[in-house]
Amino acid sequence: LVSVLSSAIIVYRLPWTWKCSKLLMKFIHAGLNTIAMILAIVSMVAVFEYHNARNIPNMYSLHSWIGLTAVVFYSLQLFLGFAVFLLPFAPVPLRAALMPIHVYSGLTIFATVIATALMGITEKLIFSLKNPAYSASPPEATFVNCLGLLLVIFGALILWMASRSHWKRPPEENAKVLRPIGGTPEGAEAESTMTDGSNADKSDLRINSEAARKQNLKLDEAGQRSTM
Amino acid sequence: LVSVLSSAIIVYRLPWTWKCSKLLMKFIHAGLNTIAMILAIVSMVAVFEYHNARNIPNMYSLHSWIGLTAVVFYSLQLFLGFAVFLLPFAPVPLRAALMPIHVYSGLTIFATVIATALMGITEKLIFSLKNPAYSASPPEATFVNCLGLLLVIFGALILWMASRSHWKRPPEENAKVLRPIGGTPEGAEAESTMTDGSNADKSDLRINSEAARKQNLKLDEAGQRSTM
Repeated sequence: LVSVLSSAIIVYRLPWTWKCSKLLMKFIHAGLNTIAMILAIVSMVAVFEYHNARNIPNMYSLHSWIGLTAVVFYSLQLFLGFAVFLLPFAPVPLRAALMPIHVYSGLTIFATVIATALMGITEKLIFSLKNPAYSASPPEATFVNCLGLLLVIFGALILWMASRSHWKRPPEENAKVLRPIGGTPEGAEAESTMTDGSNADKSDLRINSEAARKQNLKLDEAGQRSTM
Repeated sequence: LVSVLSSAIIVYRLPWTWKCSKLLMKFIHAGLNTIAMILAIVSMVAVFEYHNARNIPNMYSLHSWIGLTAVVFYSLQLFLGFAVFLLPFAPVPLRAALMPIHVYSGLTIFATVIATALMGITEKLIFSLKNPAYSASPPEATFVNCLGLLLVIFGALILWMASRSHWKRPPEENAKVLRPIGGTPEGAEAESTMTDGSNADKSDLRINSEAARKQNLKLDEAGQRSTM
């Protein structure tokens, strides 16, 4: 689940995918998130059936509360993402306004899922290790602790990749006009001269790229590069 | 601890502090983080003494592993932040290069501290609630679960505040030159016209703010506004 979720997050950040069309990338992003959602539902059903079979109460722990909250927000995120960014009906200003929220809530849900996993690991180790107990540090405890630590490191790496501006997908070069519907990003022509901010110093363009810069700044201010 | 830590994070984001000098703000940020570090050390000593007094093994749980990792990285963060950003010896390019890392690791440590707290709450509830047990959902369990959920919401709000570009501290107006040492931010004159990207459209300035825009874009690309 965490690995599919992280693939969905960093799919826009992989240089070898920058040649794919924006629309294909969006389908991959949406598809991976749908797979992650299915995995989440399957695992929740499994947990409830396991609890019922063993007469263990459901939804009593903080792990379950936060996990369910994350799944609820994740389905909301998936539904809104599908309706606003994948279907061609939402106007560009709405997409531009919602994109920073979409990115923020996606990353926050990802971090919450990792925290939920860590709580689940803690619970499982306490409940399952009895003789010797968790506190006696048997090899299983040390091994699973290492896995938990790796999960944190993995999550931190994904968040690093997702928050670096120079790992952003560059705009498509062939897009020349803003189009409300379709696979081409608005602002693409605005950014073709500004993919790397450090090149600005060397550029001699002064007036003719001014509108482009404004557009670029506006998009940067909104925390995103393209919303289509 | 979490509240002092979050105050230290959002101290630059509070509009009523934007009138204070940059240097004063840095002292407040460093001071709050030092207080948080002292609280972390005091609480760790308390935990070890409690464990030793009750003959409970130390450092066996995932909570303790991740918590100690967070404290180690936090001391590193505090030391590096002090050496690079507070002492006047580090050159501006080094500050500019390290600022995105400083921001990223600060927020990641904050999220890790919240995850550690959630694991600690889970452990404590399992170990302390015996009759009735945690799984029977006594009022204490529900109450502490709510606190845990509030902690997640609180952390998400802090990360939202810290990641919104329009809540960034505006630059100081009186700074007109780049100064390698002192309390004035470089790029301040560059940003005075560009505090809000949405104003760019209304602005009639074309050529005279061009250098300012370049500087602004360069700083934005580096993921930070000023490094002094």
